[in-house]
Formats: sequence, C-alpha cells, structure tokens
Amino acid sequence: MKISIIGAATTKFGELWNSSPRELAKEAFSSAITQANVDAKKIEALYVGNMLGGLLGHQENIGSFYAEELGLAPVPAFRLEAACASGGVALHNAINSIKAGLYKTVAVLGIEKMTDAGGDLVASALMAAGSDEERGSGITFPGLYALMAQAYMAQYKISEQDLAEVAVKNHYHGSFNHKAQFRFPVTVSDVMKSSRIADPLKLLDCSPVTDGGACLIITSDGALMSKKGVSIVASEVGTDTLALHKRSSFTSLRAAKEAAKRAYAKAGVSAEDIDVAEVHDCFSIAELIALEDLGFSEVGKAAGDVKKGKFTRGKGRTIVNPSGGLKACGHPVGATGIKQAIEIYEQLMGTARDKQSVKNAKIGLAHNVGGSGAIATVHIFRRI
Amino acid sequence: MKISIIGAATTKFGELWNSSPRELAKEAFSSAITQANVDAKKIEALYVGNMLGGLLGHQENIGSFYAEELGLAPVPAFRLEAACASGGVALHNAINSIKAGLYKTVAVLGIEKMTDAGGDLVASALMAAGSDEERGSGITFPGLYALMAQAYMAQYKISEQDLAEVAVKNHYHGSFNHKAQFRFPVTVSDVMKSSRIADPLKLLDCSPVTDGGACLIITSDGALMSKKGVSIVASEVGTDTLALHKRSSFTSLRAAKEAAKRAYAKAGVSAEDIDVAEVHDCFSIAELIALEDLGFSEVGKAAGDVKKGKFTRGKGRTIVNPSGGLKACGHPVGATGIKQAIEIYEQLMGTARDKQSVKNAKIGLAHNVGGSGAIATVHIFRRI
Repeated sequence: MKISIIGAATTKFGELWNSSPRELAKEAFSSAITQANVDAKKIEALYVGNMLGGLLGHQENIGSFYAEELGLAPVPAFRLEAACASGGVALHNAINSIKAGLYKTVAVLGIEKMTDAGGDLVASALMAAGSDEERGSGITFPGLYALMAQAYMAQYKISEQDLAEVAVKNHYHGSFNHKAQFRFPVTVSDVMKSSRIADPLKLLDCSPVTDGGACLIITSDGALMSKKGVSIVASEVGTDTLALHKRSSFTSLRAAKEAAKRAYAKAGVSAEDIDVAEVHDCFSIAELIALEDLGFSEVGKAAGDVKKGKFTRGKGRTIVNPSGGLKACGHPVGATGIKQAIEIYEQLMGTARDKQSVKNAKIGLAHNVGGSGAIATVHIFRRI
Repeated sequence: MKISIIGAATTKFGELWNSSPRELAKEAFSSAITQANVDAKKIEALYVGNMLGGLLGHQENIGSFYAEELGLAPVPAFRLEAACASGGVALHNAINSIKAGLYKTVAVLGIEKMTDAGGDLVASALMAAGSDEERGSGITFPGLYALMAQAYMAQYKISEQDLAEVAVKNHYHGSFNHKAQFRFPVTVSDVMKSSRIADPLKLLDCSPVTDGGACLIITSDGALMSKKGVSIVASEVGTDTLALHKRSSFTSLRAAKEAAKRAYAKAGVSAEDIDVAEVHDCFSIAELIALEDLGFSEVGKAAGDVKKGKFTRGKGRTIVNPSGGLKACGHPVGATGIKQAIEIYEQLMGTARDKQSVKNAKIGLAHNVGGSGAIATVHIFRRI
C-alpha cells in the first residue's frame, strides 16, 4: 500500500507568547489541508503528538481536544506521548491505521506550548521523561547529554570545538529558514564563548525551549495524490532503558540503531542512499551520535565528517538538518517529529524555498528521539 | 485477519498503597503472558493506556518506561492517553498495528495509580480531561455527570431511586468478583442514604478512585491460538466536544453512538446479539446513557429495564457489567478499558469463576468513555 504526504505545514517556531496551542494547531492544520487541497471532511482520523499538555497546560484528553478545535469530531482522535519523540510515534501510529485499512486519509498534528511556563517548571516537566534515579540525583537533560558528550570525547578524542561545529552547521542552515526560532549564523568561537550549561555543553550546544505546531495530511487514496509526491516507505520504532546508567554504551543509542536497522530493511535502502535527513540534535553531541547510529558516519568519525562539511548544504552529499534542526529551528517537543517529516517532504518536493538544500533528491530520512534515548523513531521517505 | 486474545489478567483493583505502578504492571503482564503460554520474546510491541502518570506520578515517556520495566525493550512501545478511555484507545491502536502487518503478537497494558495522591489533586488531575470553561467554573466530573442526570431525569421522568438501581445491580455483580474494589451489595436505600456529592448523584452513584493494572496479549499468529478462543471483531472510536455546554444533547453521547454504529456495522451484529457487555458506568447516569447509546434499551427506557433486571445476572438476556463495572470493580482510569476487554474475554471463555454471569455466550461488547463523553471506544468480541 502506498501512503503519501499530500499536505504539510508548520507554524513559525519560537517564543510565541501571543498564540495559544489552539491557535498554533489550527494554523498548522489549516495550512496543511489547504495545501493538500482536500476538504476537512475527508479527514477520517486525527493523531496528535504532544508531551507536555498535562504538566504545563493542565490539559489531557488531547486527541479529542484537538478533534473538537479543528472541527473534526466525531472522527476518531488519538494522543500519543513519547517525550520528545511524541511526534514520531504519532506519525507511526497514523501510518499503521491506514495500513490496517481502517482509514484512508488522516491528519497528524504535533503541538507543544512551552514558553508560557517558567524555566524551572519546563526543566522539571521535561525530566518526567527521565528515570526516578536521574530525577532524584537532580540531573536534567543537558546534564544527561553532557555525560554522553564526556564519554564520547574521551573515547574518540574530539574537542569541545569539534562539538561546536554541529551548532555552526545547524545555525547556518537555520539562517535560510524563515520559520526557524534562530536565524543567525554562529561561529565556533561564539559557541565556545557562550555560557557553560553542563560541562562540556554550552548554551549554543543546546536546543532551545520552543512553541510550535506542525501538521501532515497523509493518505492512501490515489485520487487525492498528485502526480509528483512523497511516499512514506518505512516507519520504525525502537526502545531502550530510560536511565543512562543502565546502558552498556553512552556513545550510541540502542533505540535509534534498532529503529534504523528495521527502517533501512523495510525501505530496501541503506545510509548511502539518503539524500537528506533531519536528525534529533537536541544537543550537539546528540547529532554526532545520530550520524553514527544512522550509518552516515563511521563510529567515532562523525565530528570529523561534520567539520569537513559532509552534511552541510552546498558541500556535502547527504544534507543533515536543512531546517536548522532542533538547535536553530527550535524544539517544541511534540511537534518536532512532525516538523522533521515536513522538512524532508519539502526538500524532496523542491518546495523548501530559501532553505532548499538538495536538488532532485529522491530519498530522505527523519530520526526522532525521546528522553535521552529511551525511544526513537526512524521514517524513510521517497519522492515519486 | 483474525486477531485473538490469548492472555488476559488484571491485578486486584483497589487502594493498593503497598504496590507501585511498576509492580502492578509487572503483575498483570506476567499473569497475562503465563496464561497465553508464550515467551515474553514473542511480544513484538507494547501499547500502554495511561492518563495520570504525568500529573500524579511525574512520569511521562510511559511507553518506553514500561517496555523497560517489563523487560521488552528494544521493542516499539507506545503510550496512548485519552482520559478514562486511554485503555480503549490503546487496544484500538494495538489492533491496528497488527492489522497493518507490522506485528503479530502485542501486549496491551492499562495502568493507573491514583490513591497515593490527595483527593484534591486527583480531582484536579482528572479535570485535565475537561474544557477550560468547565475547569474555570470550578465544576468536577461528578458535577458534569450530575448535570446529565438532571437533564435525563427531567426528560424521561425517572427518580433518584431509579438511578440507584444501577449501583445496586453493579454492586451485586461486584460481590462475585474477588478482584473488585467493593465486594459488598448495596440496596436502593443505602444509595439514597449515602452522602450527596453533586445533586442528584450520591456517593454510591459514583465510581471510586482506584489503583490497578490490566494486561491483554493479542495475536494474529494462528500457531499461538488455542482451539477455543475469543476474537476481536470490531474496534471503533468516536469523539465529541469536551464541554457539555457545546452539545445538542445531555442525555446521550455522540462519541459513543458513533463508535457503536461503526462497531456493529464492522462486526455484522446488532445490539440484540450481544450476550454480555461491560459499559462505562463512572456514574449511575452514565450506565443509563450507555445502555441507550448502545441500543440495549430504547431511548428513555434504560432505568426501567435495569429495574426489571434485564441486565442482571440470573435474570436478563444481555448481562451488563458482570465485573461490577467501574462502580464496584473500581476505576483505575487508564486500566479500565483493558479490564473491560478482559472481563468480556473471561465471560466468553467461561473462565470468570464466581463472577461467571452468562453460559455459552458468543458475543460480547466493551464500551469505554473518556471525559464526560469527548471520546468513546466500542470493541466487539466473538467466541471461536
């Protein structure tokens, strides 16, 4: 069964203090449905990726909540939560529902409103994705990824400057994205001079706290597809322990490797075939690990590859994070997985405007991670 | 594709202060897998229904959390949240993943730990399933269902004593259930004398706050099925507005009617064919509405039917809530939808022990509602 993306839109990402989550969802959905050129009545189900609606917004029952807000009730509606991979798992389950023959055309919404709460509250809410022991020790996500960075630096002999190159690349890409939270380029020196958050990670190694919405319309209905389009050819998920200290490695994510292995097999492609990818760079170290888990770099070689420009627009073969990634585009957690898929769609369709980073690209990949790697999704897309 | 239940188990339901959510999940999963007589390695994915892990337990990322706890990682794991229908929607998505051809054998866990928090906290957390306007006005779920009860009583001229008959029936059924939170029968007079919670609902019209876990093992793998078994022949979902004041009727739930209509059509059966049902009696009025939405009673006639014993074991044709329902068995919100399916499984298999309420029953139904009717699921099961 061929499942294609026929509509895809995000809101602006950033500190959107004048917009409610309702408004962000409506804006993303309305743009996606307009682009798909289908009536909202064609939407047979709604899948929503959202993590923090309860803890920060005191709203649960989020599937029905948005089904009502978008005027879709009484269609079935589902809220998937998997921390920062909520968007990816929502897309995965939406695809399954179509493959199951239950629906033909569904909307997949990713939504998060984070900046209305104070920083302490946000950090505490995000740590709900962690383990008891991690919370009890007072560590937060920058600290967890800092441990991974320390382990990686020790094992593969890379420097803080090498880490910084990831931020430099992604800020460069983000400078072309009119919806990105940060549109300014940064230098290695800027990163090195930015405040130290959790050694060795500095402010500019970290993705920001972001508001945003993203919506995909996907269908198996040939009558709704255009001649040119993008099919979803693999959607896979892996899991691991929540806590770092229970893992055998700090320098790769089992969940992501598992999902990638399955996804490549399902799509019948390998890492070399990927023209463009969005990967989960919540911290600079996370992108290095992702590049290796996905097979884009040999183990221990990702930092060197990034520095050489292997993943940079205008230089590399496989462009990674053309949107600016979580780092520069922003990271509204439940929306991120959907935004990644939308970015790949636009890159493959050639509709990415200023941020278009590949020409005539055929195959793209999105890699979305929850927690410090307790869950990961990998989706592969093909232009048709 | 035939999808069958091969393992099904709940923990005791009640105020389980000595058990953590982890322990409840492990107990339910371990019993279910033993009953299914399969190795845990056969489980290809985990679906979890849970509402309050974040707000009451400060734990999100709940799919991976339980995948780790149950020793299932790196298999894909998903957390579905739809307020009190979290269990029903988890089951729905688990079924879809099998129908999609992605997995053959999956575990579906429903889990909720509610009694560790104070009553105010629980009421507030549950209201996260409601609308802004409802929360802002200070109303809680007993109040919302009391409004429905007032409307129903006015429209169909029934008394508070008539409402009480639902509690009497369900407590009677619960008295046979060794896992029920309440195993004592009550009389109409007991209900009438119990504290008034939200006029006209009294304490004994209301389901309790409960801890509990429930786990189903479902499969499409013929090699794992016994000769005698139970198939899931329909799994449907409907939605509606979150807030009561936006609905055209207070005396029926559009979400449930929509799900029921689809489910009957999919299963090729009608209300008359159902031998046994578990319905979402969070308040006595909710069961009357459910009986009519599902077609078991004519509109306005449910109270009379309950009073006549039409749904009571030993008396009626279609036995409703043989477990004791949410009222007497208890209502750990994310576990309820799974427990309902388990109860129907046991009734159809003839393994319900003291609570066995039907003989040689062939077709059963489970009806699970979220919020005050913003979402509902209907599953239909057939003995094979």
